[in-house]
Amino acid sequence: MTVTVAQSDLRAFIARCFKACGMPTPDAAKVADLMTKADLMGQDGHGVFRLPMYVKRIRAGGMNMTPAFKRLKDRPATALIDGDNAMGHLVMHHATGLAMEKARTTGVAWVGARHSNHAGPASLYAMMPAAENMIGLYLAVGSANHMPPWGGTDMLLSTNPIAVALPSQDFPPVVLDMATTVAAYGKIKTAAQRDETMPEGWMIDREGNPLTDPKRASEGFLLPIGGPKGYGLSLVFGILAGVLNGAAFGRDVVDFNADAETVTNTGHVILALDIAAFADPDEFRAGIDAVWTQMKSSGRMPGVDAIRLPGERLDRVMRERAAQGIPIPEALRTTLAGLAAELGVAPL
Amino acid sequence: MTVTVAQSDLRAFIARCFKACGMPTPDAAKVADLMTKADLMGQDGHGVFRLPMYVKRIRAGGMNMTPAFKRLKDRPATALIDGDNAMGHLVMHHATGLAMEKARTTGVAWVGARHSNHAGPASLYAMMPAAENMIGLYLAVGSANHMPPWGGTDMLLSTNPIAVALPSQDFPPVVLDMATTVAAYGKIKTAAQRDETMPEGWMIDREGNPLTDPKRASEGFLLPIGGPKGYGLSLVFGILAGVLNGAAFGRDVVDFNADAETVTNTGHVILALDIAAFADPDEFRAGIDAVWTQMKSSGRMPGVDAIRLPGERLDRVMRERAAQGIPIPEALRTTLAGLAAELGVAPL
Repeated sequence: MTVTVAQSDLRAFIARCFKACGMPTPDAAKVADLMTKADLMGQDGHGVFRLPMYVKRIRAGGMNMTPAFKRLKDRPATALIDGDNAMGHLVMHHATGLAMEKARTTGVAWVGARHSNHAGPASLYAMMPAAENMIGLYLAVGSANHMPPWGGTDMLLSTNPIAVALPSQDFPPVVLDMATTVAAYGKIKTAAQRDETMPEGWMIDREGNPLTDPKRASEGFLLPIGGPKGYGLSLVFGILAGVLNGAAFGRDVVDFNADAETVTNTGHVILALDIAAFADPDEFRAGIDAVWTQMKSSGRMPGVDAIRLPGERLDRVMRERAAQGIPIPEALRTTLAGLAAELGVAPL
Repeated sequence: MTVTVAQSDLRAFIARCFKACGMPTPDAAKVADLMTKADLMGQDGHGVFRLPMYVKRIRAGGMNMTPAFKRLKDRPATALIDGDNAMGHLVMHHATGLAMEKARTTGVAWVGARHSNHAGPASLYAMMPAAENMIGLYLAVGSANHMPPWGGTDMLLSTNPIAVALPSQDFPPVVLDMATTVAAYGKIKTAAQRDETMPEGWMIDREGNPLTDPKRASEGFLLPIGGPKGYGLSLVFGILAGVLNGAAFGRDVVDFNADAETVTNTGHVILALDIAAFADPDEFRAGIDAVWTQMKSSGRMPGVDAIRLPGERLDRVMRERAAQGIPIPEALRTTLAGLAAELGVAPL
């Protein structure tokens, strides 16, 4: 049975788990806030669902609880941050703040990070600039390789996601948050936990046949969107977030789920673009509302109940969950109860 | 029968056609050079193939032969250019040069353009920064709407492409140049001219059935890559290149192919990223070579002869055509001969 918990309860639970692992209180509060936001946003594969893995990694010595971020390179509109193997949420919260600060003057800023870790959903960071009349764009090297180059059988690429957030006026912001694979690996993990079958087209096995049992995910590969095009996007985003930042890419990517000890050296990019450098922000936000209205007004194919825009579900789920609480499926609740007992903290 | 022509002959032919239309000699030379490069790169739908349409538009008064670019907004790392309804090639050549100049100091620059026109293949501009130890990223609103929002039947979106170019050392640069639709419209026009059939998955008709005759393209819609994901990419890239720049988007997009008179107000974006702001450029380029080696070394699915990287075909075709000439299919040659007669210039 799925129970729902208030966001404040979830936030407090996550924070006390991290504190029990030795994370300083302000950092634990910040990560708990960002992880809870992921759940609020309906990103079920990227919120509290990941807590047991994070804790396992921290306890195995795989993440640094007292990191000191270094700015390795600095230009008026760019920076390269060394995350000192901190939780990815802390690194990217810092990097995004820096990008926004720079973009306010220069118009645009691109901040890269290395020696980071899994940071939750891509939209979490793209949406930060969007709250302040900026456009946010986020890229990352995924935290495990699940995809070969197109036509290949060696898993050298990840789901390398892109998120773009565009602020609006009366409608929800337009928020695109997508893996360059047909399905994100988080979705497959959620499907496995829920005993669901995957649709054909998400994964293939090593012979190229459809793989639909998410519990057999380790025997196959994720498929890129649009075949070679999605492969190209994954490759290019991975180079921008990985190779350019001196972060892991290709054979150097550590499977975050299978190996809790090795430093992952995860790479990310956040770009912040100040709308005022191009347009009146109010007019731009009204323009995004006009995009909503225009797309919604389109005629529909038979059987289609409504035209949707990226960010629509996120906004609806966020309102629902803020009001009614965050659903925690029974299997996850059991796992979290075990985690609380293991850490000696009060359960959720 | 397909004949091949030397690039210098093609360049001279294009330049004299434009000059005969009243384009100043330096501009005609610049556009001819960029269009010939498109053909050299193997972008057959974006080079001389488009010349008759460009000439038709110029003669109908739909493009400005004596434009004065204005810098409407200017920040250290951004600019918004008004292209004064010039040929898109001229606008984007100017915008890309400006972005590179800014990025040399600031680390990154984002230059948007409005009141531009069709500018040829996306990679043409992304590759300019890549020739000078920078990374180039280009976005545009496509020059005609051929796609509804996902589930819809009103054509409100275009193929809105992305190109990213990453410089290498001994291997070719990695160059991704892709429409957010399964097929670019240029490919469909080429297929129609060659009397070829399209594979299923490129287009659907208004009832959702596969459409495979490229001559019936006007009766159907292009399909986005990855369904709603490609729709999301097209929407977001279109907003960044269109709405943000005050350029046409959605219902305001003029079909460049069907209407030669109405000002298109085409929008584009070029981003230049100075590699030295993140890494030693030599090390980065060696890193791109390592990516080539690693991807190429992957095991292969049955029936796959080689793993390919984005930019591989472009580089091979460019070398072949530079040495052997540019193939011009007979139908196109006939069209160009007619154009030469119409303009009173020497044929190709």
